[in-house]
Amino acid sequence: MNTPSALFVDLYELTMAQLYYERGMTREAVFELTVRELPEQWDYLIASGLDRALSFLEQLRFSEDDLEFLGSLPQFSQAFIDQLRRLRFTGDVWAPPEGAIAYPDEPLVQVIAPLAEAQIIETAMINQIAFPTLVASKAARAVDAAAGRPVIEFGGRRAHGAEAAIEASRATYIAGFEATSSVEAGRRFGVPITGTMAHSFVLAEGDEAEAFDAFVSRYPGTTLLVDTYDTQPGVANAVRTARRFGPGSVGAIRIDSGDLRTEAWQARVMLDTAGLSDVRIVASGGLDEYQIADLLSVNAPIDIFACGTSIVAPPDAATLDSAYKMVEYDGRPVAKRSPGKPGIGHRKQVWRLPEHDLIARFDEPPLGEAEPLLQQVMAAGQRTAAGSESLTQMRARAAVGRVPRRVETDPSLLR
Amino acid sequence: MNTPSALFVDLYELTMAQLYYERGMTREAVFELTVRELPEQWDYLIASGLDRALSFLEQLRFSEDDLEFLGSLPQFSQAFIDQLRRLRFTGDVWAPPEGAIAYPDEPLVQVIAPLAEAQIIETAMINQIAFPTLVASKAARAVDAAAGRPVIEFGGRRAHGAEAAIEASRATYIAGFEATSSVEAGRRFGVPITGTMAHSFVLAEGDEAEAFDAFVSRYPGTTLLVDTYDTQPGVANAVRTARRFGPGSVGAIRIDSGDLRTEAWQARVMLDTAGLSDVRIVASGGLDEYQIADLLSVNAPIDIFACGTSIVAPPDAATLDSAYKMVEYDGRPVAKRSPGKPGIGHRKQVWRLPEHDLIARFDEPPLGEAEPLLQQVMAAGQRTAAGSESLTQMRARAAVGRVPRRVETDPSLLR
Repeated sequence: MNTPSALFVDLYELTMAQLYYERGMTREAVFELTVRELPEQWDYLIASGLDRALSFLEQLRFSEDDLEFLGSLPQFSQAFIDQLRRLRFTGDVWAPPEGAIAYPDEPLVQVIAPLAEAQIIETAMINQIAFPTLVASKAARAVDAAAGRPVIEFGGRRAHGAEAAIEASRATYIAGFEATSSVEAGRRFGVPITGTMAHSFVLAEGDEAEAFDAFVSRYPGTTLLVDTYDTQPGVANAVRTARRFGPGSVGAIRIDSGDLRTEAWQARVMLDTAGLSDVRIVASGGLDEYQIADLLSVNAPIDIFACGTSIVAPPDAATLDSAYKMVEYDGRPVAKRSPGKPGIGHRKQVWRLPEHDLIARFDEPPLGEAEPLLQQVMAAGQRTAAGSESLTQMRARAAVGRVPRRVETDPSLLR
Repeated sequence: MNTPSALFVDLYELTMAQLYYERGMTREAVFELTVRELPEQWDYLIASGLDRALSFLEQLRFSEDDLEFLGSLPQFSQAFIDQLRRLRFTGDVWAPPEGAIAYPDEPLVQVIAPLAEAQIIETAMINQIAFPTLVASKAARAVDAAAGRPVIEFGGRRAHGAEAAIEASRATYIAGFEATSSVEAGRRFGVPITGTMAHSFVLAEGDEAEAFDAFVSRYPGTTLLVDTYDTQPGVANAVRTARRFGPGSVGAIRIDSGDLRTEAWQARVMLDTAGLSDVRIVASGGLDEYQIADLLSVNAPIDIFACGTSIVAPPDAATLDSAYKMVEYDGRPVAKRSPGKPGIGHRKQVWRLPEHDLIARFDEPPLGEAEPLLQQVMAAGQRTAAGSESLTQMRARAAVGRVPRRVETDPSLLR
């Protein structure tokens, strides 16, 4: 779960780079990473992943082991291997800060660097930015749907590997989740860690009531999982334990299966009848923004939503439709015109106005009250202050009220 | 991209483990990892990910840093921290070997270990097995659809982080893909590496014909990307370059956009007319088994399919519906009965018969001609020979003809 090696590269980036050097094509290029289209029903993105992408650039170097492997391939000359040995990322990077709202066609990363440097990082840039942005955006939608109720993340087991799990915990926290179940994410990023109990604890103990008593006596204020056998008797056992151990002993119950609305209502009535109005109800089980909205639209008495799989690997957005494309080379705007996937040349800036964003040529003069979205986060291979934010700053930025915005493209861009 | 740390654990696994120790619940447990339901239209899985999961178990230990962090949390006693310091995985593991076909409800991993050990590895086991199995299964479907034509993988940029990218390259190779674009996967696993060129090479060069000439003169036999501007003139430029540099100079052309069937036909006619019948056509652009089948059903003259996004992060299967559940504790079968998600107790073996699989209690006598699917891959924390296979062995296993199978459950299991 460290920074990817320099060999985290698609072969063609290296074969192209070798030719760039051999042909003296070493002038400055501008590449932009954009999302081309949002998943259906989505209307914004939350930028994320920049910190890791910048770490990759800072640490980019080909080790002797890397070079030895490349030397064993038929494609590469000794001269190129020697060039790679000296290669460091010396370019500038501009980007929206993490936690910022972003829209399709707006650069999520803009790289200005000698052509080969900007080319070799293609795979890593897309890979390191697109997934965290996907998860942060999905998570922000769940936070919006929960309308002020806490949402917590526990999708580590279903993420695409351990690295994706840890990055997803970080991204959901930036987007406004309250906590994660992942101990590693807690250690690494300071995300608050939370947890309840698994069905296996009840099964190993054998008796649900005894299992609840044991858990509460050791962890007062804990959350009891009530659906190992049958939810209503499970809630009854939780009530029994809460009464036995007194006020505050049971903080919440968790329902993980069945019709969550009905189960939550039955549980709420049972808890309130027993004088346990302070015991909260946590719901889990494949929840995302759609299920949360549905549950709240029918007034399900759920206090906390625990989301896993559907946030860290969204079923409605397996990936973002992202691309890292050259928009200028040696001062000349360039764009491919592939049918259905045209590009827009020119280095860009995005101006955020009260009612809409304006995508314009970078060299256009600043607009009056507009804020530029792209900040310089790296200068000549070194992070700037804007590229060194804390998670708290990013999270605060994402917490600002979100509204769908219009995005306009300055006609000068299309000339 | 190393083995996850011991803190790659959900908090509740540790709080439960502490209580297991405190309550003397240290007897042997059996946990099984299963897929509960296949994605729609799928009819089999290809088991993958075991090698990494076993590495995790072999290397499982809490470092002093890990323990210091856990000691800073309010939940854990010094006695438990000391227990974790000594903890090693001492259990047995049984599993289908990588590359084997598997079906829902069949254990993909079976862990037999002291309760706390088996519990603490829950997150890691699901995380390390489910994603590679997902990708290998999706990839095998693409191989089936391609009906003998080579399929290559270049999805690294769209995978969920660098680790997911590398694991996906490995999984697709096991499933029968011919090569990957990932240099790191090539180095780490010996997967053949392949590559073409990107639109940026043509754009930086400025002139497509010159770009093709430059590429072919440096990389004879290469693949030229013909759709940077407009595919038909692009093919015409490729023809020109192929004639100029002679037989074998252009190995293939790649079409990455537009109506692939029409573009491929037009390109095939142009190539054949120019006497370039040996130049092959590579298609790419969001391809998976469904698009491949569609293209072949209308006789698109495509020789090689290049698959990325839709294989490494399948849109029809963001995750597998997997669970790691206790099925025995201290010799007693256990199962939760949550509504809609019931389990089946008892440690199991899967018997593979010519016409179907039979899921039976592990202690049932072997069936006559049946082969046991689950092999012992780890004994007392050490890998066995069956847990130390080469990628070649796994790939050969996956290459055996696949047929949808019936899966039956021995009635003795349900008693």
